[in-house]
Amino acid sequence: MLIHDIITTKRDGGALSSSQIEFFIKGLVGGSFGEEQVAALLMAIYIHGMQEQELVNFTLGMANSGEMLDLSSLPGIPVDKHSTGGVGDKLTLVVAPLAAAAGVTVAKMSGRGLGHTGGTIDKLEAIPGLVTELSEEAFLEQVRQIKVAIISQSASLVPADKILYDLRNRTATVSSIPLIASSIMSKKLAAGCGKILLDVTVGQGAFMKDLPSAIALAEAMVAIGNGAGRETVAILTNMDEPLGYTIGNGLEVKEAMQTLAGSGPEELEELALLFVSEMMQLAGLGEASSHLSYLRQLLLDGTALQFFRRMVEAQGGDATAVFDHTSTFALAKVTQPYLAPQSGYVSKINALLLGEAAVLLGAGRLNKGDTLDMAAGIRLECGRGKFTQIGEPLCQLHAASDALIARAMPLVAQAFTFAAEPPKRPQQVLGRII
Amino acid sequence: MLIHDIITTKRDGGALSSSQIEFFIKGLVGGSFGEEQVAALLMAIYIHGMQEQELVNFTLGMANSGEMLDLSSLPGIPVDKHSTGGVGDKLTLVVAPLAAAAGVTVAKMSGRGLGHTGGTIDKLEAIPGLVTELSEEAFLEQVRQIKVAIISQSASLVPADKILYDLRNRTATVSSIPLIASSIMSKKLAAGCGKILLDVTVGQGAFMKDLPSAIALAEAMVAIGNGAGRETVAILTNMDEPLGYTIGNGLEVKEAMQTLAGSGPEELEELALLFVSEMMQLAGLGEASSHLSYLRQLLLDGTALQFFRRMVEAQGGDATAVFDHTSTFALAKVTQPYLAPQSGYVSKINALLLGEAAVLLGAGRLNKGDTLDMAAGIRLECGRGKFTQIGEPLCQLHAASDALIARAMPLVAQAFTFAAEPPKRPQQVLGRII
Repeated sequence: MLIHDIITTKRDGGALSSSQIEFFIKGLVGGSFGEEQVAALLMAIYIHGMQEQELVNFTLGMANSGEMLDLSSLPGIPVDKHSTGGVGDKLTLVVAPLAAAAGVTVAKMSGRGLGHTGGTIDKLEAIPGLVTELSEEAFLEQVRQIKVAIISQSASLVPADKILYDLRNRTATVSSIPLIASSIMSKKLAAGCGKILLDVTVGQGAFMKDLPSAIALAEAMVAIGNGAGRETVAILTNMDEPLGYTIGNGLEVKEAMQTLAGSGPEELEELALLFVSEMMQLAGLGEASSHLSYLRQLLLDGTALQFFRRMVEAQGGDATAVFDHTSTFALAKVTQPYLAPQSGYVSKINALLLGEAAVLLGAGRLNKGDTLDMAAGIRLECGRGKFTQIGEPLCQLHAASDALIARAMPLVAQAFTFAAEPPKRPQQVLGRII
Repeated sequence: MLIHDIITTKRDGGALSSSQIEFFIKGLVGGSFGEEQVAALLMAIYIHGMQEQELVNFTLGMANSGEMLDLSSLPGIPVDKHSTGGVGDKLTLVVAPLAAAAGVTVAKMSGRGLGHTGGTIDKLEAIPGLVTELSEEAFLEQVRQIKVAIISQSASLVPADKILYDLRNRTATVSSIPLIASSIMSKKLAAGCGKILLDVTVGQGAFMKDLPSAIALAEAMVAIGNGAGRETVAILTNMDEPLGYTIGNGLEVKEAMQTLAGSGPEELEELALLFVSEMMQLAGLGEASSHLSYLRQLLLDGTALQFFRRMVEAQGGDATAVFDHTSTFALAKVTQPYLAPQSGYVSKINALLLGEAAVLLGAGRLNKGDTLDMAAGIRLECGRGKFTQIGEPLCQLHAASDALIARAMPLVAQAFTFAAEPPKRPQQVLGRII
């Protein structure tokens, strides 16, 4: 077999056979091909797309290119939860302990943030002492003991994805549904969970800006998961506005803990209950719709927060942080409000602009490897749907210096839209793909 | 400007602007881009094609990437003649001196052969002593003195094409009409002729296997030439069968000289007269159709052959070769006939198979830089359209050893098709694109 023939097949709009895919992934990881050859193939995939079975095979090939985690020794059916990324998206921090409290096995690998979208691992590391790099053995043992662990993705998972992702960045082939779907799902398959719940975000703050693209991505990922024998469900959620009131690692962890204690923002709690219900159904614990009041109870009686505390302790974190935020979390050196330039109802809050502002404040990365300021970020002050007087603070900016705040402020100033009438509450859940 | 944006434009099916093309060609030759980026762009061009003005700009950009020959000091309008390649295609060897004899300025750069198609420069070098690498000054002076010179293409012409061609070979992006057309025409534009006559071959022995592809290529090249201000005409010619009776450098030169003396194969002479007539018309010497009997006269009275002899002498070749083939040309060590396996009319002679057989005999190159045996090749013995008895020779194979002949024989044995009825003479000229 020759790489030339594989490129030709895809160039002419054909589907790669399973043996072609196997040959390609093996050679890719083994360094057998020139980058120019892989780039030509990526562009052909970008333009012509992939057929469903081809995409399943391609993703399985990628998943098999490195270590495959074996979770079969765990009790129950481990259910993964993955988000395609958002601004202020701390949902996993709420969902994982709540699902564990509700009896779901949560053995989760997460990633770091890049650009305006954050990453769960970065957020967790805002908790003093907490470690996210565990051996496979320690990871599995923790899940056996306390039902929940969230660790950073092992570097030996899916080496094919690292090579392709790097090349896609350089060759303008990032925004391809089959390439995005196979990149995400290959890591999910390698991470070993038997069932997968996907949060496919849609809107200004998401990777997918419009509903049709998001549906296409969700359908591709669900097809891959089911095609690979892992039951997969995707929930489409609105990411035009930030999720909750905080953006930034330390700020988001605190908001997640408030939500785990039953006193978080309504929209965040609703989404968390929905996602955990879906995870319970995937784990075989009954119909999703029947769990909502039970889960609400787990928040109110302190059970969910207890599971979070156990996870923090098990991973070496300072558990006092869970109950006493003010003394344990690092605080930003400088805090400055952005004041309403007019009176009115805040009708829109642009997630992308605030996400980019948070990066400039030190909460996110422009490039891989940038270090983060765990205290930096933005806290929204405007009650959503409430009338704001001119000069009232719309949000607080947290950073290490006035200079950083000055850099972020122009973006923040563009993020708020006013209206004379109270806005309709945006629809949070936009669809469900099975 | 970023290469990423140029790739994106083409990826999404748009047309590159002239400033994008300028930026790309400059960066390409300057080594500013990764091969993976150029490869991604090539694949996007392959799949989406190019619009006409975009293709003209792209080709002009390539032509301008290196030395541009200036022929303005020559008398008359220099007319180029270029073939997209064939088997036994010695047409340039006949056309160039005949056109010069008829008053056309012929200042021609030619290439070497690769694979089953030969190159004019290789053929000329079969003449003992003949040199094809001349300084620009010597080249122009020769044309001024004797109206005709054929030299090998300067290495400093169109460096962008060398880079792209090499990449296209590795990325399965060779067979793209705009990429083929811009590669050929950029070299024609850089070589400086004011008018261009193209021989676009069609059929088994040609690069374009079918008429629609050949027409598309011819139209693209004519559009480029005319768009760049160089009047261009393309003639579509049949290349299902070898042109004339010989394949191989020395053998073809001898056949070309016979044709120049008025005693060559009818089909070769007809094509030569047609092409020279077209060149005369392009040079402003009157309607093509009016020249045929005049040109036939130039063959019969020895004028055309005299022009060939002068060119051979001017380029250092042994002029006795022109009149006494047997004593001056190298002869193959081994000659072996292929005998007709049955009686009948030879209805088809496969040009591709015989071209590949000639390469195996030593007449052509599998890889750039392979050395050639100037005496090697194939001479057809079967009178076309005549009845052949079983055991009569269909052709003679010439090579340096029995081993080489044994290597080529299986291809030769597949090349002849027999029929009970005399075949219709195939149509030689399939179209004319202006």
